[in-house]
Amino acid sequence: MEVATYVAAPSGGLALARLGADVIRIDPLGGASDHHRWPLAPGGGSLYWTGLNKGKRSVAVDLRSPRGQELVTALVTERGTLLDNTVGWGWLADERLRASRPDLVHVRVQGRPDGGPALDYTVNAAVGVPDLTGPAGLSGPVNHQLPAWDLLTGSQAVNAVLAGLLHRAATGEGSYAEVALSDVALGAVADLGWLGEAQLRGQDRPKQGNHIYGSFGTSFRTADGGHVIVVAMTRRQWRALQEATGTAEVLARLGERAGLDLDLEENRYRLRDELVGVLAPWFAERDVEAVTKAFADTSVLWQRYRSLTEVAAAGDEPLLDEVDQPGIGPVVAARSAVRWPAAAPEAVESAPALGADTEAVLADELGLGQVEIAILVDEGVIR
Amino acid sequence: MEVATYVAAPSGGLALARLGADVIRIDPLGGASDHHRWPLAPGGGSLYWTGLNKGKRSVAVDLRSPRGQELVTALVTERGTLLDNTVGWGWLADERLRASRPDLVHVRVQGRPDGGPALDYTVNAAVGVPDLTGPAGLSGPVNHQLPAWDLLTGSQAVNAVLAGLLHRAATGEGSYAEVALSDVALGAVADLGWLGEAQLRGQDRPKQGNHIYGSFGTSFRTADGGHVIVVAMTRRQWRALQEATGTAEVLARLGERAGLDLDLEENRYRLRDELVGVLAPWFAERDVEAVTKAFADTSVLWQRYRSLTEVAAAGDEPLLDEVDQPGIGPVVAARSAVRWPAAAPEAVESAPALGADTEAVLADELGLGQVEIAILVDEGVIR
Repeated sequence: MEVATYVAAPSGGLALARLGADVIRIDPLGGASDHHRWPLAPGGGSLYWTGLNKGKRSVAVDLRSPRGQELVTALVTERGTLLDNTVGWGWLADERLRASRPDLVHVRVQGRPDGGPALDYTVNAAVGVPDLTGPAGLSGPVNHQLPAWDLLTGSQAVNAVLAGLLHRAATGEGSYAEVALSDVALGAVADLGWLGEAQLRGQDRPKQGNHIYGSFGTSFRTADGGHVIVVAMTRRQWRALQEATGTAEVLARLGERAGLDLDLEENRYRLRDELVGVLAPWFAERDVEAVTKAFADTSVLWQRYRSLTEVAAAGDEPLLDEVDQPGIGPVVAARSAVRWPAAAPEAVESAPALGADTEAVLADELGLGQVEIAILVDEGVIR
Repeated sequence: MEVATYVAAPSGGLALARLGADVIRIDPLGGASDHHRWPLAPGGGSLYWTGLNKGKRSVAVDLRSPRGQELVTALVTERGTLLDNTVGWGWLADERLRASRPDLVHVRVQGRPDGGPALDYTVNAAVGVPDLTGPAGLSGPVNHQLPAWDLLTGSQAVNAVLAGLLHRAATGEGSYAEVALSDVALGAVADLGWLGEAQLRGQDRPKQGNHIYGSFGTSFRTADGGHVIVVAMTRRQWRALQEATGTAEVLARLGERAGLDLDLEENRYRLRDELVGVLAPWFAERDVEAVTKAFADTSVLWQRYRSLTEVAAAGDEPLLDEVDQPGIGPVVAARSAVRWPAAAPEAVESAPALGADTEAVLADELGLGQVEIAILVDEGVIR
């Protein structure tokens, strides 16, 4: 069961559906605040909502009515597993639900651990990432566009659900876990050593453009106006890059003059501007096709920067499928990134139309008959 | 058991340790290629390695020697669970391991699904995120600095491990799953609807600075040179922002002139530049303290951008603890972002010194005696 909105918890429900769970998403009549979010298809349907709710069943009820709340509570009790982000909804408080289903596995996604509001964009600002993102010398923060904290929080919530199910399988006990966006973000910058670095060195890492901190990797512009990223973290990648670009001698002299062994990645980072000075002309003289040719069958680790339209047009990825999405039509959609090589790749399921499964779920899960369902429709609790 | 390097799989092992698993990390003698990665403490210890390996046990063996490979294989067989990123290591191929432990739960993190190499930075370029990140009008890609795909891949790998353990608990069967960085990234831009938008509209979203696509949220500069992000996704947040900044009338006229109902978030996005024009002076006239005061006890959703040194200095987060880290000394470290409110917050464990648990693990898990261990030391298989 999922009672949630926006990206974090619904992306968790999506992951659970991909793992084979029968996920029922609960929405208010007419959809929650995320039902019409951008991006939209040309016809107006939300690619955001349908993207995040693939393979789930949809139940829509009047969540403000006592009868609607009763139905959702009964479904949670019947199902025994709940992922939500319903901070402040007293009727879905864990202790109330647990009273009728003691072994409930319940995970709640929050903004802050105290229940206060926060979004991906605000927690990102709070933990310092925009401060060190973007072109060197640029003043002011650069937000990521990818809602990385939402996605990571959703995935960590899935870990909590699965850990809860394992614990229940082993002991029969239920559990209640909370995962706050702000904690996920703060935890990540701590785990990566960034917070310790700031604490122990007392200074901030400056913006460094597209460079990879502490190693060698950055972007280059090609003759045709494209861009590529080239990474040389390992000695093998570094040697391959020098060989393929014919820069080994010049770079060796550069290292000698600076007294730095460029076979060590930290020295390549220290001398990054000089290395770019040597390598950039090689890329500037070649279009992407020539670069592709030069790096073929080498150990150079590189990638052309693509736009989303280029990614969509490539259409060569086994991960992608096309689904016929209600409300949208045929559209590209992704399989699970977690793959079981022994199994055949599954067909991607579309997202349900809002409320498409309401009657079936109430009948199957709660045993409601046609008359009871007709009364609920009459009373406006369901449509 | 974890046989892995860099961020993705080790961050997954860290999550498993936080969920209570006894995680043994295997490294080659002297450490793998990630053992000295930046950021470094002033004394030279890697805050990166210690940050990602907290609460694990460390076993270091000569992974190139047949005897070392035998020991690791025996440990995997004994433990029954393996998270690795050892693409191309024949001796750790799933079918070899499974021959001696049929119910093994094995998850492998890869660059690409075909086993080819890729890193966070290259898959990010491949899926189009740097293309739409950064200041409006800026030419060229802007890399994120946060290794978002690594962290998300690590977390999805934990999903796969836990799903495998559940499946084994229910059926007795093992499983083998693969998770590729490139699939995780491609899957995310598909799930968010970005890929469908590019496919169906045939055009790319331009860079839009710090704006939130399809809603209202962006950064403002304050009188003291600070920056804040303000988000008004819901009507309630939007009303609160207008009230707190005294801009309701001006903004109402703006909406009327444009023929757009600004109570709808998509219209706030369409008119974002004009809204910033009205709101920016309010922030420019106030320092962060005055903004804080004006927004206190309102529903305005906002956050001051902080640098990492400010985050580290704040020291007021229940998530954070200080650990005495071997090789580094006292340093800030994070608890699990997944919290069980019913349980007391755990103390954070430090990362082990490299190889600190080698002898104990070989003795406890494989039953090796003192003489056998002494021979392994003599032969240089362990230290």
